[in-house]
Amino acid sequence: MSKAGTKEFPACLMEKRELVEKHLEACLPREDQYPQTLHAAIRYSVMAGGKRLRPLLAIAAFEACDGEGEIIYPAAAALELVHTYSLIHDDLPCMDDDAMRRGRPTLHRKYGEAVALLAGDALHDLAFRLMAQTDSAQAVLELAEAIGTNGMLAGQMADMEAEGAPVSEDDVTFIHAHKTGKLIRGSVRIGAVLAGASEYTLESISQYGERIGLAFQIVDDILDVEGDAHTLGKSVGSDTRNAKATFPRVIGLPKSKEKANQLIEEAVDIITTAVTRPDCFVELARFIGGRQS
Amino acid sequence: MSKAGTKEFPACLMEKRELVEKHLEACLPREDQYPQTLHAAIRYSVMAGGKRLRPLLAIAAFEACDGEGEIIYPAAAALELVHTYSLIHDDLPCMDDDAMRRGRPTLHRKYGEAVALLAGDALHDLAFRLMAQTDSAQAVLELAEAIGTNGMLAGQMADMEAEGAPVSEDDVTFIHAHKTGKLIRGSVRIGAVLAGASEYTLESISQYGERIGLAFQIVDDILDVEGDAHTLGKSVGSDTRNAKATFPRVIGLPKSKEKANQLIEEAVDIITTAVTRPDCFVELARFIGGRQS
Repeated sequence: MSKAGTKEFPACLMEKRELVEKHLEACLPREDQYPQTLHAAIRYSVMAGGKRLRPLLAIAAFEACDGEGEIIYPAAAALELVHTYSLIHDDLPCMDDDAMRRGRPTLHRKYGEAVALLAGDALHDLAFRLMAQTDSAQAVLELAEAIGTNGMLAGQMADMEAEGAPVSEDDVTFIHAHKTGKLIRGSVRIGAVLAGASEYTLESISQYGERIGLAFQIVDDILDVEGDAHTLGKSVGSDTRNAKATFPRVIGLPKSKEKANQLIEEAVDIITTAVTRPDCFVELARFIGGRQS
Repeated sequence: MSKAGTKEFPACLMEKRELVEKHLEACLPREDQYPQTLHAAIRYSVMAGGKRLRPLLAIAAFEACDGEGEIIYPAAAALELVHTYSLIHDDLPCMDDDAMRRGRPTLHRKYGEAVALLAGDALHDLAFRLMAQTDSAQAVLELAEAIGTNGMLAGQMADMEAEGAPVSEDDVTFIHAHKTGKLIRGSVRIGAVLAGASEYTLESISQYGERIGLAFQIVDDILDVEGDAHTLGKSVGSDTRNAKATFPRVIGLPKSKEKANQLIEEAVDIITTAVTRPDCFVELARFIGGRQS
C-alpha cells in the first residue's frame, strides 16, 4: 500500500500469536458450564479470529522493556477481550446496527440482543479479572483509563455525535485517537508497566502507541474505500453509507495515505531511539501501515 | 414487616452514608467535561438516590475487621457504580424494558438507548478503576468474580431464561443468589479483604453476605406484591405481570416471609460469633429484613 508499510505479518510475532490464541482459549469459560448460552456467545465472538494486534503490542512492549516471565499473557488476553466487548456493543442495533463481522453474522444477529449485551458485559468483566491476575493494580488502572470516558468511550460518543454532521480533520483525529488509539496506546503501556519500564521509556512507548493507533484507524478508513470485502470479512463502503467521520472524507484519499505513512515513520523513529530492542516494534508499525485487512 | 426486621436505617451508618454520597459525587466525571452527555447520563443514574447498601456493607465489614484509613471509600463507591451499571443495562428494551426507576424515567427513556448502553459501560469501567485505586489486585479480583458469568451475570441469564417458564424454589434461589446475592456477598468480602481479615473471618463474612443477599431479594419480591408504589419509587406488581421467577410465586407470601426472617436470623448468628464488633452488621441485617423500599 505504501513505502512505509508491509503486508507481511511480523515474523517476530508469529509464535507469540499462537501463544495468545492458546491463552484466549484457556481463559474463556467453558461452553458446558452454566450459563452455557452466554459462554457460547462469548466464544463465538472471541474465537472468530482477528489479528490479535493489541495482545501482540503488549507482548512486544513487554519484551522490548526486558520483561520476564508469563505475567504478560493474562494481560494480553485481557486486551483482546476488551476489544471484543467494544465491537459487540458497537455492533448493537442502538449503535451501528451491523450485520456482519469477520465474515460471520454479528453476535446479536446470531444470539439476540440481550445475550449480545450481556456477552459484552461479561467480556468487559473478564478482562479486568485477567488484568488483576497480573497482581498489578497499576495495569488495571491503565486499562480502565484507556477504555473509560476519557478514552475509548469518549471516542465512541464523538463518533456517534459526528454521524451525518459536518466534521473537521481535528474532529476525526479526536475520534480515531480515542475510539481506537487509546486502547492501542494502553496496550503498549501495559506491556511496559508490567516489565517495570522507566518513566522515560514509558513516555516514548506511549508516543509510539499514539502514532500507530491513529495510523491503524486511518488505514481502516482507507480500506473501507479501496479494500477488498472478501479479505476484510466485512462489507466495504459502509463508512460512506453511514456518513461516518473518516480521514478520506475530510482530507481525501491521497492525503490520508500520506498522513498514515508519516505517523508510521514517526513511530519508528521514536521507538528506535527509546528501547534497546526496537526491531519487533518497527515490524509491527510497518505491518499496521501496510495491512490489507 | 417481621420480628426479624426493622424499618429503621442503621444509626451506626447514618454518617457513613453521607460520606459515601460525597465520595460518589467526587469520583464521577464532571458534566462540563467531554463527553458531556455521557457524563450527565452517568450522574443522572448514580445520583438518583438509593440506599447505598453495597457501599455501606463494605464499610461495615472493613470496620468490623478493624480496617483503618480511607482506602475503603473508593472501593465502596465502586460497588455502587457496578450496581448502577447493572440496573441501567437491565432496564434496556432488550432486557426488562423498564420505564421507571427510583421515581424517574429510566436512563434510556431519558437519554436514548445508545447513551444508556455506553453509560452502563462507563460505570462498569469506572468501578474497576476505583477498585484498583485501593492498590489491591485481590479486591479487583473479588469484584470481577462477583459480577461475572459465575456471579451476577449468571443470575441475569437465569432470570431471563426463567421468564414465563415453570420454575422451582431451587431455580429462584439460584437466580436471587446470583443476580443480587453475589454482589452483596462480594461487598462484605471486599471490605474484609481490604481490612486484611483472616481466612476464617472472611469465610464467616461470606456466609453472612450470602444470607442477607438472598434475604434482600426475597424482601424485594414481597414488596413487589404488597409494597407501596410511592415509597418504592417504581410500580408494584411488575414481577407478576412479567411472569418473573419470584419466591411468592413458587412458595407463596407467608413462606417467603418466613424464609427471609430465617436467613436474617442465621446471618445474625453467624456474624455475632465471627467478629468482635458485630453490632453494625446486626443492625444492617435487620434493616434488610424489614425495609419498606
